[in-house]
Amino acid sequence: MYRTHNCGELRSEHIGQEVTLSGWLNKNRDYGSMTFIDLRDRYGITQLVFNTETNENLYNDAKKLGREYVLRIVGIVAERSNKNPKISTGDIEIIVSDLEVLNESKVPPFTIEDETDGGDEIRMKYRYLDLRRNPVQQNLFFRSKVAIETRKYLANHNFIEVETPVLIKSTPEGARDFVVPSRMNQGQFYALPQSPQTFKQLLMVSGFDKYFQLVKCFRDEDLRADRQPEFTQIDCEMCFVTQDEILQTFEGLTKHLFKTCLEVELSDFPRMTYDEAIKRYGSDKPDTRFGMEFIELNDLSKGYGFPVFDNAEMVVSICAKGQADSYSNKDIKKLTSWVQRPQIGAKGLVYVKYNLDGSIKSSVGKFYNDEQLMGWLERAKAEKGDMLLILCGDTDTVRGQLSDLRLEMGDRMGLRKTGFNPLWVVDFPLLEWDEESERFHAMHHPFTSPKEEDKERMLTGDHSTMKALRADAYDLVINGWEIGGGSIRIFDRELQAKNFKLLGFTEEEAEAQFGFLLNAFEYGAPPHGGIAFGFDRLCSIMKGAVSIRDFIAFPKNNQGRDIMIDAPAVIDNIQLDELGIGVVIEKDA
Amino acid sequence: MYRTHNCGELRSEHIGQEVTLSGWLNKNRDYGSMTFIDLRDRYGITQLVFNTETNENLYNDAKKLGREYVLRIVGIVAERSNKNPKISTGDIEIIVSDLEVLNESKVPPFTIEDETDGGDEIRMKYRYLDLRRNPVQQNLFFRSKVAIETRKYLANHNFIEVETPVLIKSTPEGARDFVVPSRMNQGQFYALPQSPQTFKQLLMVSGFDKYFQLVKCFRDEDLRADRQPEFTQIDCEMCFVTQDEILQTFEGLTKHLFKTCLEVELSDFPRMTYDEAIKRYGSDKPDTRFGMEFIELNDLSKGYGFPVFDNAEMVVSICAKGQADSYSNKDIKKLTSWVQRPQIGAKGLVYVKYNLDGSIKSSVGKFYNDEQLMGWLERAKAEKGDMLLILCGDTDTVRGQLSDLRLEMGDRMGLRKTGFNPLWVVDFPLLEWDEESERFHAMHHPFTSPKEEDKERMLTGDHSTMKALRADAYDLVINGWEIGGGSIRIFDRELQAKNFKLLGFTEEEAEAQFGFLLNAFEYGAPPHGGIAFGFDRLCSIMKGAVSIRDFIAFPKNNQGRDIMIDAPAVIDNIQLDELGIGVVIEKDA
Repeated sequence: MYRTHNCGELRSEHIGQEVTLSGWLNKNRDYGSMTFIDLRDRYGITQLVFNTETNENLYNDAKKLGREYVLRIVGIVAERSNKNPKISTGDIEIIVSDLEVLNESKVPPFTIEDETDGGDEIRMKYRYLDLRRNPVQQNLFFRSKVAIETRKYLANHNFIEVETPVLIKSTPEGARDFVVPSRMNQGQFYALPQSPQTFKQLLMVSGFDKYFQLVKCFRDEDLRADRQPEFTQIDCEMCFVTQDEILQTFEGLTKHLFKTCLEVELSDFPRMTYDEAIKRYGSDKPDTRFGMEFIELNDLSKGYGFPVFDNAEMVVSICAKGQADSYSNKDIKKLTSWVQRPQIGAKGLVYVKYNLDGSIKSSVGKFYNDEQLMGWLERAKAEKGDMLLILCGDTDTVRGQLSDLRLEMGDRMGLRKTGFNPLWVVDFPLLEWDEESERFHAMHHPFTSPKEEDKERMLTGDHSTMKALRADAYDLVINGWEIGGGSIRIFDRELQAKNFKLLGFTEEEAEAQFGFLLNAFEYGAPPHGGIAFGFDRLCSIMKGAVSIRDFIAFPKNNQGRDIMIDAPAVIDNIQLDELGIGVVIEKDA
Repeated sequence: MYRTHNCGELRSEHIGQEVTLSGWLNKNRDYGSMTFIDLRDRYGITQLVFNTETNENLYNDAKKLGREYVLRIVGIVAERSNKNPKISTGDIEIIVSDLEVLNESKVPPFTIEDETDGGDEIRMKYRYLDLRRNPVQQNLFFRSKVAIETRKYLANHNFIEVETPVLIKSTPEGARDFVVPSRMNQGQFYALPQSPQTFKQLLMVSGFDKYFQLVKCFRDEDLRADRQPEFTQIDCEMCFVTQDEILQTFEGLTKHLFKTCLEVELSDFPRMTYDEAIKRYGSDKPDTRFGMEFIELNDLSKGYGFPVFDNAEMVVSICAKGQADSYSNKDIKKLTSWVQRPQIGAKGLVYVKYNLDGSIKSSVGKFYNDEQLMGWLERAKAEKGDMLLILCGDTDTVRGQLSDLRLEMGDRMGLRKTGFNPLWVVDFPLLEWDEESERFHAMHHPFTSPKEEDKERMLTGDHSTMKALRADAYDLVINGWEIGGGSIRIFDRELQAKNFKLLGFTEEEAEAQFGFLLNAFEYGAPPHGGIAFGFDRLCSIMKGAVSIRDFIAFPKNNQGRDIMIDAPAVIDNIQLDELGIGVVIEKDA
């Protein structure tokens, strides 16, 4: 037997008992005739004592041991003279009588401590060592806990977990499928699911009523943002359900998770339409932990001879509270450069400072007198010391730019550090017109239902009608991150066929790709809808972490590589031949 | 709102209440002035009443509805005059006041009832309709329940669920990997895991102590047997653990699942060595619900002038209780043909009948007198009415053949219908010599540890030693099915390197494929071991089902195809180009 107890378990009530422990040498401290070793496992740390008086040989052996050696010891639990209240076993120590080195360890390439000296790359390569560090382990234990509580909540609400297939069919819509050549059907390919969307809808057609799954999904896309080629969703679908019931259920889930996993009580989540979110924050996923809402200034700023504003579709500002004094001309210049970076793309930045002494200073003071500028400040409810930051341009574009600036100012002003502000954004547009390809894209996905009052218009309306269609689609946003989203689905063959047509599918393509779903709608499909949460993202947001990688045991890097196992990798020609495929890289073609 | 209650919920205490229900029209029965409709959902069936007296229009509407129509009704709960004790809502019915057809249904291609008229193929194509049938739904609800109880038990035993990656690296060992071309790393491929073996071992090196995962695994192999290209495992690993502790833990899990999901109390599981199982049953996964153990007859049958036995390495028999009378010469002939089928491959079949009148009859009566044959019967503890069935040949071959015959006789004699007989088979050989390729294969997998007493011999012994090495490897067998298996792992770099060498890896190959694991062993790898259960198989065994497909929501057929969605399928050339691959089928090459 390797152990009678783990390293986090012994208390003063065990004093006098002989115990066997196994674990890693976390730290050792030698005091000449006495050596202390901290023995570590998942459960904690226990102090071992070796001294020359009790057993000189053992003391000499113990002195030689290095960090991360794997030990098995037998000893007597003794009271510790110098108690350590910081650890659960701090009242006791083990007077070791027998020591076995189960395995040795080379010196790790970085220190296995809460704060490590290892860079990203080396820690990814030796992920199994990075995973020994307490904060990394705690993240994964937290993830496991969130998964347990998710399942508990959903099972209590009558959801059934059903596994949907991983080897499915490639869809042209969103061509970022990973594909898998079939050996038994040469020349044909499976695809890995970007989500189990059609399967969960079929489960509703089958009468499963409430489905969920914690499920791996796959997307082969550039990983510039904090994304992973494989990620996990809390995927759900319900039938005979309204949007409101879905929101209530998953607001309940979110509250349950925050309460059970973080001891945080969330209030009821506000709801905001997509249009309102765009108008007030310039974003469909606003961080509502702080205000700094958009103030539109078209009527107060246009027609006064300042051509930049006069020619702009939209002049819009935010009010940075108490920042008038903090921004020198040089600072404003820097901020202007910041909004002019290609990632943001603004042409320029206008400011109006409402100084503490009541004076007004602005970069457009030439064009507007104080009274006019005061009109802007008043609309923004600015107080002395505040500063307006103004952008202008095409409405959609400038709102996006000002949203970025708002978040930047929020960061600079320390308004985005703590707290959780969940928000439901509802009533998304059904379709998005893509100027470049001159076609509609589904804003959510092609199975999303228009709102009840828009169904008739969708079937009969003209092109301009389509742009105005609103969907029963919703996102849950927390602190500016989209945690998840969903929609009420189309469950009518005719409406679904129309949607495919609007999205540019020919009838044949729709039939070839989604014929099974269209057919299913003819055999008594019930009204249904659902939602999916990004599980990795949810965990990272809950813990206030920056990257989802911190909550994935074996993540891939930005190039989609697992640098520990060195995948992907070339495979041999025999394997390629069996699959009936060949590698044909034409870099210069 | 679509419903105030579900279709399995209303009781006599609800009488008088107005309720709203939604569901499928399961059956309707018209009696001239009155129509009854059974409304169905996942939770049950509720009887709806429409009659001309209350509302003639509604009655006329209701009469026209077809099976599988989706309805939403409002009505008053009333006491049923003709109560139905077979269903949970049998005390009440609904006097309908409002009816809405949410969706219509074409006539389904097969009947949606417990016993259906649909063949396999059509039910696979319309899987979403087959999934409406109660027995199919119950199987998947059962699966969900087993998953819940698995997680509950393992979490209670301190196991942490960790998700391991799906996009990993292809291994030459067991070349049945599905591969996934990488778009971002053209010419390179990921592989889908046949199991998370190396990752769970790394989690032990990381100190996760007890890991589990319900995880999809993938194997691209012929599907003649009841297998699926994607299947689910209960995958586990523990560190600082002995074989006995692993068996105890997972015997506990198995008992827990049978108790909570089936209300079956299992006794402690017997353990049997691999050698003993092979000797007594000719199989490493014996069905021990019945005896019919092997009786070896070499000493009693060889040297009496019957050349077939004399030239055989092994003469071995089973005793079929009470079958002497049931098998005519013609039946024996048929049984002989059965064992001679290529799937079994026996040369012939010898019988000895111990007739009820005490006489002995045998197909080898020419070569053995009654006294000699009685010696065989006595060894087999045969009683009057019993029949010995004897095969001979090379030991390994004949044991396998006799095992097949034993199972066939067990089936014919009705000995394999009910009950659960779990069995641990332990002490598997470490290596298997493959005559054809003249190399060793890992009996379990290349990470399995030889038994402690065999480690030294493994490092220093010669070729013949290797064949005799025993491993700390074990299988759980229930009713003749392998439910799962596992082993204590090697955690020493030198021993692992030696194992790779024995398995025919060059040092370079071992380094390229498993360098990360070999390296991990140098940084304080703890002793560890684990096990994996086939989750689909476990569910089907528990429910006494024949096929794992019955417990998979969307299974593939024997050609690895999902015939509902028609996958795999060809993909377009743009997609192939982006992946840097081409289809090169050379059927005639």
